[in-house]
Amino acid sequence: MSWQITKEDLPDLARGATLLGTGGGGDPYIGMMLVQRVLGEGSITILDPDEIADDLFVVPTAQMGAPTVMIEKIPAGTEPTLSLRILEEHLGRTADATMPIECGGINSMIPLIVAAESGLPVVDADGMGRAFPELSMETFAVYGVHGSPLALAGERGERVIIDTGDDDRQMEWLARAVTIRLGGVGHIAEYAMSGADVKRTAVPRTLSMALALGRAIRLAREEKRSPFDAIRDTLATTLYQHVRTLFEGKVTDVDRRTTEGFAKGVARIAPADGGGGELEIRFQNENLIALRNGRMVAIVPDLICVVDSESAEPITTEGLRYGQRVRVLGISTPAMMRTPAALAAFGPDAFGLAERFSPVESLAGEERQPAPASTLVH
Amino acid sequence: MSWQITKEDLPDLARGATLLGTGGGGDPYIGMMLVQRVLGEGSITILDPDEIADDLFVVPTAQMGAPTVMIEKIPAGTEPTLSLRILEEHLGRTADATMPIECGGINSMIPLIVAAESGLPVVDADGMGRAFPELSMETFAVYGVHGSPLALAGERGERVIIDTGDDDRQMEWLARAVTIRLGGVGHIAEYAMSGADVKRTAVPRTLSMALALGRAIRLAREEKRSPFDAIRDTLATTLYQHVRTLFEGKVTDVDRRTTEGFAKGVARIAPADGGGGELEIRFQNENLIALRNGRMVAIVPDLICVVDSESAEPITTEGLRYGQRVRVLGISTPAMMRTPAALAAFGPDAFGLAERFSPVESLAGEERQPAPASTLVH
Repeated sequence: MSWQITKEDLPDLARGATLLGTGGGGDPYIGMMLVQRVLGEGSITILDPDEIADDLFVVPTAQMGAPTVMIEKIPAGTEPTLSLRILEEHLGRTADATMPIECGGINSMIPLIVAAESGLPVVDADGMGRAFPELSMETFAVYGVHGSPLALAGERGERVIIDTGDDDRQMEWLARAVTIRLGGVGHIAEYAMSGADVKRTAVPRTLSMALALGRAIRLAREEKRSPFDAIRDTLATTLYQHVRTLFEGKVTDVDRRTTEGFAKGVARIAPADGGGGELEIRFQNENLIALRNGRMVAIVPDLICVVDSESAEPITTEGLRYGQRVRVLGISTPAMMRTPAALAAFGPDAFGLAERFSPVESLAGEERQPAPASTLVH
Repeated sequence: MSWQITKEDLPDLARGATLLGTGGGGDPYIGMMLVQRVLGEGSITILDPDEIADDLFVVPTAQMGAPTVMIEKIPAGTEPTLSLRILEEHLGRTADATMPIECGGINSMIPLIVAAESGLPVVDADGMGRAFPELSMETFAVYGVHGSPLALAGERGERVIIDTGDDDRQMEWLARAVTIRLGGVGHIAEYAMSGADVKRTAVPRTLSMALALGRAIRLAREEKRSPFDAIRDTLATTLYQHVRTLFEGKVTDVDRRTTEGFAKGVARIAPADGGGGELEIRFQNENLIALRNGRMVAIVPDLICVVDSESAEPITTEGLRYGQRVRVLGISTPAMMRTPAALAAFGPDAFGLAERFSPVESLAGEERQPAPASTLVH
């Protein structure tokens, strides 16, 4: 069933999208403000992916670039839709709907800007099921829909079209170069596909999941319930079945450097009571691997989410500060994101990690099993 | 009147194009071999720019990238024509002819490859009247025809379209980034224009001039006449009226470094007899300024050409070697390349030079005036 998003939903969506950003993905609150400005009192139609026509023509839209630059370069509001128009003109076909390419971070919001401007509906699905740093890391590509041709719009009305056939990494490589020379941010339309393609290749209902997560956290706080129970209960009805508390404590160290356009580094969390044990998180924009006392407890593409230990407010890599009291959650990704082909596109090896993928529900044990007092404080 | 180019003309054209490359422009002998391969025993029709129809649709073609990389990455032969096809598809219009964007260096040859492959004629004109390092340094742009949309083809069939409206420097900036990531060389079609535009904005008959220069030098050698007289006599019938011998001697120093994708540096030439005096040439791919005993005697966009002191064979910046006996020629550019608008696009300031443009015929004095024995050896 299709449903409507209004401006009242946006703060909840931003909160959920930050959680699914797993530390990266760009700031959805910036995107939220842009949607609010364009949407006003209106609403956006969201289409359930199971119910769309097989011949629906879907053109996903997104922003690419360094998250830090996005904050400084808020788009005028025309570039997101311009990228869609460039691709429509190039293909000689008008889009019936847009869709996110990733559900975590700012790209949860960009398609809503396009929808609010153009009147198009948005398909409730995406190609990352979280946030990833590169345009080629898409379930779309894994299951046979390629990104080319990609249309890119710059803030001074620059129009670029890149077509690398079925080589999505080359597409990413060239589009990244253009984006850097455009000042760090470009708006893109890519992975144009049919409704049938969406059903076969997209991670379904991730926009509604982000909204539901953000709303559940807020309502639990308002009603003095545990926001962590709310996260668990919300995910229980989705393809993201398993939630594990990987660690709880305070941030003791954040070593972050920006290199080759990525924020790379390590964060360390120790028990707040000064007891022994440690969680180490290595990140490249997004959190990639969590090691508890040296033993791996979660690894990409599963989600490693750092949240405030009281409010469950998600914290990005940029927002990590010494002394913060945090809980680190491990969340399982859907089966379609764990196949050998999927892992080749966005598993550990794609990020240069030597570790092999293993599901968080195997690595981190049962959530209810007794944990050392020093590492699990309720 | 239209005329034909055959494979027998190509070595002469390559020689003339090297001279007009003023030290840079890429190696036309590489391009020549590619033309020979595609052309075989056939011929290419060359159109006089004064005689083309005003509504002729002309799509210039060229190669962009670092000359040193071009030698290592000889195109398969399909990319030059692919760039034309990409632009045709994008514009929804079929080209009637192609044309060089620069008449010096390898880009004298690229349109001939396209012509030999496609059967299109080539317009005898270009947009630089020599070689320049950037796509925005075009008389086309100076007189109101802009480069966008630009189509770029990569060696693995990558297709890129860049449209920056009337901002040709931004077009160059983005296309350069893509070219670098394609491995250093891209094939481009840009500055699509009408026959009327060609008449208004192009430097006319530069392809035939390059051919005539190369042929005149060769014939003079064969007939034991002075190749320098041959150069002077050939240019006397063109828009390049003035030739001056700026210096003659041996190369004593070449300081060349590759930085930001350019070969930048200084060459010094001293009298071969050990006498006093010196010519200093500063270059950025192409020779930009010549100082004789510290006093400027020629400056961009006028041509500064280093040639062998006996055979008049042109020598590129890459080919400069210690001890070479050389003559340095200054050649005046056409009036349309010396207007304030033209100088803003490709005059001294465009290369970061503090000196102001002054015509070589004023700076270097009369060719027949007595010169110090140590600097002019006949």
